[in-house]
Amino acid sequence: MIYITRRERFTAAHRLYREDWPDEKNLEVFGKCSNPNWHGHNYDLYVTVKGHIKPDLGYVVDLKTLSEIVIKYIIEKVDHKNINIEVDFMKNRMASTENMSIAIWEQLDPHIRNLGIELHCVRLEETENNFVEYYGN
Amino acid sequence: MIYITRRERFTAAHRLYREDWPDEKNLEVFGKCSNPNWHGHNYDLYVTVKGHIKPDLGYVVDLKTLSEIVIKYIIEKVDHKNINIEVDFMKNRMASTENMSIAIWEQLDPHIRNLGIELHCVRLEETENNFVEYYGN
Amino acid sequence: MIYITRRERFTAAHRLYREDWPDEKNLEVFGKCSNPNWHGHNYDLYVTVKGHIKPDLGYVVDLKTLSEIVIKYIIEKVDHKNINIEVDFMKNRMASTENMSIAIWEQLDPHIRNLGIELHCVRLEETENNFVEYYGN
Amino acid sequence: MIYITRRERFTAAHRLYREDWPDEKNLEVFGKCSNPNWHGHNYDLYVTVKGHIKPDLGYVVDLKTLSEIVIKYIIEKVDHKNINIEVDFMKNRMASTENMSIAIWEQLDPHIRNLGIELHCVRLEETENNFVEYYGN
Amino acid sequence: MIYITRRERFTAAHRLYREDWPDEKNLEVFGKCSNPNWHGHNYDLYVTVKGHIKPDLGYVVDLKTLSEIVIKYIIEKVDHKNINIEVDFMKNRMASTENMSIAIWEQLDPHIRNLGIELHCVRLEETENNFVEYYGN
Amino acid sequence: MIYITRRERFTAAHRLYREDWPDEKNLEVFGKCSNPNWHGHNYDLYVTVKGHIKPDLGYVVDLKTLSEIVIKYIIEKVDHKNINIEVDFMKNRMASTENMSIAIWEQLDPHIRNLGIELHCVRLEETENNFVEYYGN
Repeated sequence: MIYITRRERFTAAHRLYREDWPDEKNLEVFGKCSNPNWHGHNYDLYVTVKGHIKPDLGYVVDLKTLSEIVIKYIIEKVDHKNINIEVDFMKNRMASTENMSIAIWEQLDPHIRNLGIELHCVRLEETENNFVEYYGN
Repeated sequence: MIYITRRERFTAAHRLYREDWPDEKNLEVFGKCSNPNWHGHNYDLYVTVKGHIKPDLGYVVDLKTLSEIVIKYIIEKVDHKNINIEVDFMKNRMASTENMSIAIWEQLDPHIRNLGIELHCVRLEETENNFVEYYGN
Repeated sequence: MIYITRRERFTAAHRLYREDWPDEKNLEVFGKCSNPNWHGHNYDLYVTVKGHIKPDLGYVVDLKTLSEIVIKYIIEKVDHKNINIEVDFMKNRMASTENMSIAIWEQLDPHIRNLGIELHCVRLEETENNFVEYYGN
Repeated sequence: MIYITRRERFTAAHRLYREDWPDEKNLEVFGKCSNPNWHGHNYDLYVTVKGHIKPDLGYVVDLKTLSEIVIKYIIEKVDHKNINIEVDFMKNRMASTENMSIAIWEQLDPHIRNLGIELHCVRLEETENNFVEYYGN
Repeated sequence: MIYITRRERFTAAHRLYREDWPDEKNLEVFGKCSNPNWHGHNYDLYVTVKGHIKPDLGYVVDLKTLSEIVIKYIIEKVDHKNINIEVDFMKNRMASTENMSIAIWEQLDPHIRNLGIELHCVRLEETENNFVEYYGN
Repeated sequence: MIYITRRERFTAAHRLYREDWPDEKNLEVFGKCSNPNWHGHNYDLYVTVKGHIKPDLGYVVDLKTLSEIVIKYIIEKVDHKNINIEVDFMKNRMASTENMSIAIWEQLDPHIRNLGIELHCVRLEETENNFVEYYGN
């Protein structure tokens, strides 16, 4: 079993808040991350898959194919977007890095399975100091 | 003459657009950077000052003082903010990295001079692939 | 289950040696890391915790709280310090990266538990080429 | 149990292809990675070992010894070399990052065991966007 | 005057050698960089241009346009290629980082001028430890 | 004229202080950087030289030679050392990054000249947030 990782990047705006709370309460709980005028990040997304090496091809998966899947199902939907407002798979979820990681897993998982391999980890880095990893359960 | 640089970081939302243009024209000219719902970045700000070493202290400037100036006059105004809407020194300027660099220079310059040294360069990195440098003219 | 990581940094002096050995033997065994006049590092400390997302808040833990705990119980005790001489939780332990990782785990673990989450990994990077990971047993 | 990692670097040329296929078919399957005139990379190799801390020495393994093993059995054989043509332990294997990771594991494993510790992971980074991890089975 | 930089990356094989010298002499002079079977690198190319901010657009140059020029005239010609054999603008030049920087300058300069701005610096990083800068004369 | 840069790294202990001041005054002026028990850093040293490309060799300077000079005259004297106590070229100088940069310039300059090229810049990075550049006057 080999683990192979592809990094893709995107930039986006977001905000931590609950719609059922007034701005004051959101700011009290979520601090500056709840700024009603938004803030944003350069996100680094690391997608790790695992599988066996195909003996006739020498690789687990064509990295070009993996990259295209990540770009089509994730990057094109989030890059230069507002995570709270514009991303279908984040509808009704708070735009935290944790929730984004799970939602990205859910989006990618069926397409990775179609390749005959398994999704192992979604790692989402929000800044050089903060990142989240999700392993599917 | 010695050059000394301090890095500070901030995250912010922004958008490239002209108010006197409709969204369609802004999107045509500025592409996805003009998304009306904003996007954002982790910005890396490098402030370089120059001066002579103070013989009794062995340094050009107390880096703690330099850092405090950058934080007080820049970071606290831009971190977790919307550059277009909330930053006083970006009023009536397009929120491009170029304009931000010049505005940051203008904000910092008098305070750096007060330290008896000179501001040499403001370098603002928007992503790992794009950055701007401004030397004051 | 989600894993979330916070990086904090510190700089410190240290030395690898045994008090019961003469300097010559220490230098023979530990090489230049045993220099009696000390050397030092910029350490990168990555603290990974794991837990479930709080449904009402969208996150596993407030990263500000996690950061404050790491700063209070670790960074303030080690930053700009001599690991061998000045750090209470390293008393009677050799100041190796391995021992520092375990000691940092022991310091942080009860405070992380108090947050209702689990400490998963302490990763301590001594240089860009050397790092240690400890998972609690 | 502590995990300790040493990074070593090398640069090399390689090509993805099958000798029993004509260049056209190789280019169709492997794309530009199959260029018959070769291309190359700066590889970052992370070797992670695990073991218990030796109580009298404070470390799991002398990192100098670990580094020397990685340099002797891997780096000297691959650095500034053509992976397909010149590396004995890659004979009759496609020069993919996956196969290289497994071959590096096989080369290092007996020497790591001789130190009384275990090899835990071979991580090979081909570019800042692509890397492979192998855990021995 | 503002300086703006775009990074693009490529991987390539190369070799330092003189055709009029036997391999032994090449190896003696250029060391392992002269391996007749090639070696390779991940190159980081930083292209810095300078100019005035266009008042109606807020930027010096559309970074998308700059990126497209660098990709069309440089990256597509060198990426996954053998610098010595396959790159037209390196014909009859030794494939050193120095010569590559000058050749890249010559390729880019007329296209940058066509944009109404000036090329300021070509910086080519061969490894994390070695890089070259060329300012046009 | 081409500029070429070599990075070398070292780790060291140091302290900012004046011998003619009591510890209290040193701590008041230099803060935690004056800890009498020392602290330390991983320093990144970038040495930039400039010159013309040798037409018969394709390079400005053999980087191996440049590296050997930096290692012999700087790294071997500072690596795993105490800058204040053990480094001959820092005698009677405060161990600030500024003074270290100038002293390193003075050490390297004659040896770089002997190669028929010029030293252009000494850049010394103390942390990821602080660095100094010296151009010789």
